[in-house]
Amino acid sequence: MSLARSPSTPAITLWIICCLCLIQFSVASKVRHFKWEVEYMFWSPDCVENVVIGINGQFPGPTIRARAGDTIHVELTSKLNTEGVVIHWHGIRQLGTPWADGTASISQCAINPGETFVYRFKVDRAGTYFYHGHYGMQRSAGLYGSLIVEVGEGEKEPFHYDGEFNLLLSDWWHNSVHDQELGLSSKPFRWIGEPQSLLINGRGQYNCSLAAAFSNSSTKQCELRGNEPCAPQILHLLPNKTYRLRIASTTALASLNLAISNHKMIVVEADGNYVQPFMVDDVDVYSGESYSVLISTDQDPSDNYWVSVGVRGRKPATPQALTILRYIPTSASKIPSLPPPVTPLWNDYNHSKSFSKKVLGLTGTVPKPPAHYERRIILLNTQNKIDGYTKWAINNVSLVLPTTPYLGSIKYGLKNGFDQKPSPENFPDDYDVMKPSVNPNSTTGNGVYTFELNTTVDVILQNANALAENVSEIHPWHLHGHDFWVLGYGEGRFRKEDEKRFNLKNPPYKNTGVIFPYGWTALRFVADNPGVWAFHCHIEPHLHMGMGVVFAEGVHRVGRIPTQALGCGVTAKKFIKPPHKS
Amino acid sequence: MSLARSPSTPAITLWIICCLCLIQFSVASKVRHFKWEVEYMFWSPDCVENVVIGINGQFPGPTIRARAGDTIHVELTSKLNTEGVVIHWHGIRQLGTPWADGTASISQCAINPGETFVYRFKVDRAGTYFYHGHYGMQRSAGLYGSLIVEVGEGEKEPFHYDGEFNLLLSDWWHNSVHDQELGLSSKPFRWIGEPQSLLINGRGQYNCSLAAAFSNSSTKQCELRGNEPCAPQILHLLPNKTYRLRIASTTALASLNLAISNHKMIVVEADGNYVQPFMVDDVDVYSGESYSVLISTDQDPSDNYWVSVGVRGRKPATPQALTILRYIPTSASKIPSLPPPVTPLWNDYNHSKSFSKKVLGLTGTVPKPPAHYERRIILLNTQNKIDGYTKWAINNVSLVLPTTPYLGSIKYGLKNGFDQKPSPENFPDDYDVMKPSVNPNSTTGNGVYTFELNTTVDVILQNANALAENVSEIHPWHLHGHDFWVLGYGEGRFRKEDEKRFNLKNPPYKNTGVIFPYGWTALRFVADNPGVWAFHCHIEPHLHMGMGVVFAEGVHRVGRIPTQALGCGVTAKKFIKPPHKS
Repeated sequence: MSLARSPSTPAITLWIICCLCLIQFSVASKVRHFKWEVEYMFWSPDCVENVVIGINGQFPGPTIRARAGDTIHVELTSKLNTEGVVIHWHGIRQLGTPWADGTASISQCAINPGETFVYRFKVDRAGTYFYHGHYGMQRSAGLYGSLIVEVGEGEKEPFHYDGEFNLLLSDWWHNSVHDQELGLSSKPFRWIGEPQSLLINGRGQYNCSLAAAFSNSSTKQCELRGNEPCAPQILHLLPNKTYRLRIASTTALASLNLAISNHKMIVVEADGNYVQPFMVDDVDVYSGESYSVLISTDQDPSDNYWVSVGVRGRKPATPQALTILRYIPTSASKIPSLPPPVTPLWNDYNHSKSFSKKVLGLTGTVPKPPAHYERRIILLNTQNKIDGYTKWAINNVSLVLPTTPYLGSIKYGLKNGFDQKPSPENFPDDYDVMKPSVNPNSTTGNGVYTFELNTTVDVILQNANALAENVSEIHPWHLHGHDFWVLGYGEGRFRKEDEKRFNLKNPPYKNTGVIFPYGWTALRFVADNPGVWAFHCHIEPHLHMGMGVVFAEGVHRVGRIPTQALGCGVTAKKFIKPPHKS
Repeated sequence: MSLARSPSTPAITLWIICCLCLIQFSVASKVRHFKWEVEYMFWSPDCVENVVIGINGQFPGPTIRARAGDTIHVELTSKLNTEGVVIHWHGIRQLGTPWADGTASISQCAINPGETFVYRFKVDRAGTYFYHGHYGMQRSAGLYGSLIVEVGEGEKEPFHYDGEFNLLLSDWWHNSVHDQELGLSSKPFRWIGEPQSLLINGRGQYNCSLAAAFSNSSTKQCELRGNEPCAPQILHLLPNKTYRLRIASTTALASLNLAISNHKMIVVEADGNYVQPFMVDDVDVYSGESYSVLISTDQDPSDNYWVSVGVRGRKPATPQALTILRYIPTSASKIPSLPPPVTPLWNDYNHSKSFSKKVLGLTGTVPKPPAHYERRIILLNTQNKIDGYTKWAINNVSLVLPTTPYLGSIKYGLKNGFDQKPSPENFPDDYDVMKPSVNPNSTTGNGVYTFELNTTVDVILQNANALAENVSEIHPWHLHGHDFWVLGYGEGRFRKEDEKRFNLKNPPYKNTGVIFPYGWTALRFVADNPGVWAFHCHIEPHLHMGMGVVFAEGVHRVGRIPTQALGCGVTAKKFIKPPHKS
């Protein structure tokens, strides 16, 4: 009796165990189906009627909740009239599904009006994520929503909480994104200005305040019944409990800070990874970042408390966003007796740096960085004038995305889809990052940084002076398809010896990392995800003005790209083959 | 000696004549090349800054001038950020090039941002034409320009003139087309309202008047230097000459009337065909129509004269557009001593009908209609509510264009591109066109009227009461790919015996024909142009609300469609075949 024909008892046992595992797995992880229609709609996010991009009639779009290991299946139908659309799943690495990353010109052709594209991908790791448009400035137009991944069945978070709330933060302009976009690409340049409102879960108040009673200004008290699209979502909490607040920022421009009166926050998660818990009075959240914080409802239960969200890093011209933390059974309509907390001064960069440096990976829950890099690229961030247009450039190249998505161009070896010249990996030694850039050689381009699969890559983001003297801005850089370790922050120009101070022990593992004015930030990641990935400043107007680069690795390993992702540019020209018919 | 080996003298002579003809032809007809970039830009069409779609930095787009027999070759590159775009060459029949008709969802997929599409087609016949966007409401956004085809070298017009001027008329809103479009497709419906301004060659004046001196209103006199984008283009003429004015209307909504103080006009051309000359004081021009008129500069040469353009058929809320007819050497800045002519009362439909009925084909220059039709379809025009949305419907079907252009779907036999059910050719006998419609069965759809090639088709456009009582609107219907004969106009419901009164002798040959309130208009055309062709109300919001149908004929005869025209919808899904690569 041979094993191959009639299995032995241990073999049968193994087989049964495998089957049970499969059953276990299929019970635990689900395919979660969504049918979404994207459309413009009239909406009043801040009590002023305007136009937003909504999903299934909602703004922000529906919240996706899933468990780690689940597959998300979104059938996205565009009901836009003349515009293409894509959706990026911010923080999801798209392991094995790079065509589902939802970045126009990179992972797919934009979805045409009336057409349906299926985004199907795995959420492999618990965390606080979100999704948003990644074409033109459709994120600014309101195309975003939350994506919350809970731990897998039977698994546990490394902290306890009794309930949770989701706070998706954004900024809002009254001017249409079409006009904003045009202004940014016009000569002379027209800056979009500061946002009119900050929104919490798509809700803000313009021309009135929830806390007018505490204000010296003439702003009137909001009179809202609660069912308006701009009425705040009040957080109803029981006393003496622990709550998790999931805070994510999909702002177009604003760097934010969130504070709650009388409540300390313990930060426990950043960008979908656990962090060493630390306690703060307020949390900085840059565009593209997410944090989870725990709060204890240990205050006087007969009162309510303010949640404030204010602008950091730019002289604020936008009032704080507010909502109320209500202690049950205190009336939800009771105005808190204390004034809303004032978020730190916009230009208190020491406060910002101090916060960022407190964010450290929770040992045992996030991978440790490789001790050495195999390739290091240094990316100088400058503001430039190119042919009279105001631009942002990286190593003097301002990104203009190609019409053909890189993923198709590279996989199929089409050389005319983008600049074939490798992208610059450094900038001149004599460049003074403390002075306005001269940049005689700055240009537009769309080359790629190509990495051998599994290379350990260091990226040094080097900030510099902008066009005007004594101006250097904050830029939160977001990497698609990967997390990176933030090895360190520094002042002035990065020097080789700075690497001695890199934190290789417990750096935070994130997908968005900030560079402070005139400083540098060192990131490390492993290029282990076959595909083409955007790496860019998450400030939407900055990206629109060229502030991004493109990384590619192991594209030959990428499986069959959906044909719809190839229906534009040179892939369309090359691959559309109608039959010969008379 | 056989003929086949050594041609006889007559054969040689014939051969030489043929060669000479070819040389003659190649000298006479040209390929005219244009490189255009389409983009949004800031512009002040009526002295108020706004956003327009321009071409090569111009608004309106560049005027194309060609000779009959020439080939137009436009390389159109889209510089729009997220929107598709197409351009329709209004009045050009696209014989043999149906894919160059520039109608999204019908002849081609919209051109993606950053991509280039080549429109190459022959202008076979002299006349006054124009071009415009035919996707979403991009025509309303200002995507239009003039296309003037002169007679072939050595040929003559059947009338004399000493010089010519081009007057492309349009209407203009301050609200963006994106918002207009959204309002029209919203529930509750939001009407776009009347235009803020009328434009002559893209120029109008809002909040001031060129003729304030003659007005009782408080409107102030325009103070323009002449180089502003909104300064009128003054017509400089010599006394005692004859001038041709080419008048075309690409309005989104307004039916227009043009009058010139103290000058009679002789109408000589309509929609690219000669008409029996007739003299009038003012000319009605519906959206989609063009006319040439002759004027004699036989007035007092020491004065200047007004050209007025006013609204017809809707209670006007828009001031008349004005420009000045200047007699050289009178100063161009001299305000005419007489007030601007007041165009006829908006609801003087007798005046309108009288004008339309004067338009007759010039015998010998336009083909005569076949004496009998082979197929007759009757198209009831109604305003409807469908699921709470306000729509226009034809025989109770409101057109919703498919995502896949018909031309590709039909040529390649793809049945899932559009409704395969034939479209309705009539409407119930008991339908009362004088009363608001009940329309229990009205629905959306995108079926096709398919004609055997070379069929003579009669179309009876039947107007009716709109949703509100005692309202019936004017609709100018435009046919792509053909001209039609306007056989007659009538009041109330068309009856079989009305055909006895059809004008088969010298009907006008046009591409746009109007139906008057509560009336019918009978058209005849020969379905002799292989392709798929839109037939629709040329009022852009009406088309957007479903007021159109689709005709197809001889699509099996259509040659190789450019692949780019197939890069969307089911043609893309079916025909994109990337190579199998590891």
